[in-house]
Amino acid sequence: MNAELPFELLHSELVACMFAREQETSSTEEANANAGQDESFLETTNAATKLELLGYRVGYALVERIAKELPRISTELDCMKFICKEFWSAIFRKQVDNLRTNHQGVYVVMDNKFFLLVPLSAGQQYLTASPRYVAFSCGLIRGALANLNIQSVVTATVETMPAVKFNVHVQQKS
Amino acid sequence: MNAELPFELLHSELVACMFAREQETSSTEEANANAGQDESFLETTNAATKLELLGYRVGYALVERIAKELPRISTELDCMKFICKEFWSAIFRKQVDNLRTNHQGVYVVMDNKFFLLVPLSAGQQYLTASPRYVAFSCGLIRGALANLNIQSVVTATVETMPAVKFNVHVQQKS
Repeated sequence: MNAELPFELLHSELVACMFAREQETSSTEEANANAGQDESFLETTNAATKLELLGYRVGYALVERIAKELPRISTELDCMKFICKEFWSAIFRKQVDNLRTNHQGVYVVMDNKFFLLVPLSAGQQYLTASPRYVAFSCGLIRGALANLNIQSVVTATVETMPAVKFNVHVQQKS
Repeated sequence: MNAELPFELLHSELVACMFAREQETSSTEEANANAGQDESFLETTNAATKLELLGYRVGYALVERIAKELPRISTELDCMKFICKEFWSAIFRKQVDNLRTNHQGVYVVMDNKFFLLVPLSAGQQYLTASPRYVAFSCGLIRGALANLNIQSVVTATVETMPAVKFNVHVQQKS
């Protein structure tokens, strides 16, 4: 038994539940409006946004609980390293595999065997569903950074399951 | 760092998020209807029901993952013991403290230091919020039993934080 199994299952049921509800709402709206808009796009966006926001709150809270056990983190790069090591290990039981940066506020975090995609990665047939399974984790990173006083935009790309690339764009303070 | 911290935080943010959304919906409905009904009761019921259902699905899936590592469970009492030991440990890192039964389908599962209530139990001031924090776990038990082919109704009572009593009523097959 893996210690992280309850978290994985709760996340996976949450994804299913959010997207099912979206589909319901969307069907009703479609029936009402009958306007031939791209409802499936809207639906994905809404559920993904909710998951991202939930991830944000968990990431924000989690940093508070981990960071008190750690020495003070000072630079932006130190923050990113903390996310890739301690923070990632605390949730996903492994560090990320690679961190790249252009030293101008853009970071690429690569995890070649991403915990929340592994159960889906028996084949490539789930590749289209993968954005649903990374939205929460985009929020996790954004929330963690926010609590370290770094505002960012985080997106993810999945090309080969179960590998994922998180793209972090730090918003420069004006 | 506790391995179960991400699960605890995800659960806690989920509770907050569900009840916040309920409150929003309820305010809108109240404004529309303006009928003086007990909206706060309805609101609690809806969010609690959703959490219970989410717990049900997680419990159902979790049993599948744990039970394959276990010898075959045959009687109803064996199932309840499995819930109290292996199942509970897998999620909450401890067994329950006490299991009582009237041998007629009624079981009382007692956990004197319930994992999801511990963060709230600094005082008794959160006692009124406690039903929100046990709804998911009522579902967990009901889902786990359903996957073991036992239909049940599960409720919870919290008298002294962070202790909780889960009351399991097995539905007799007709």
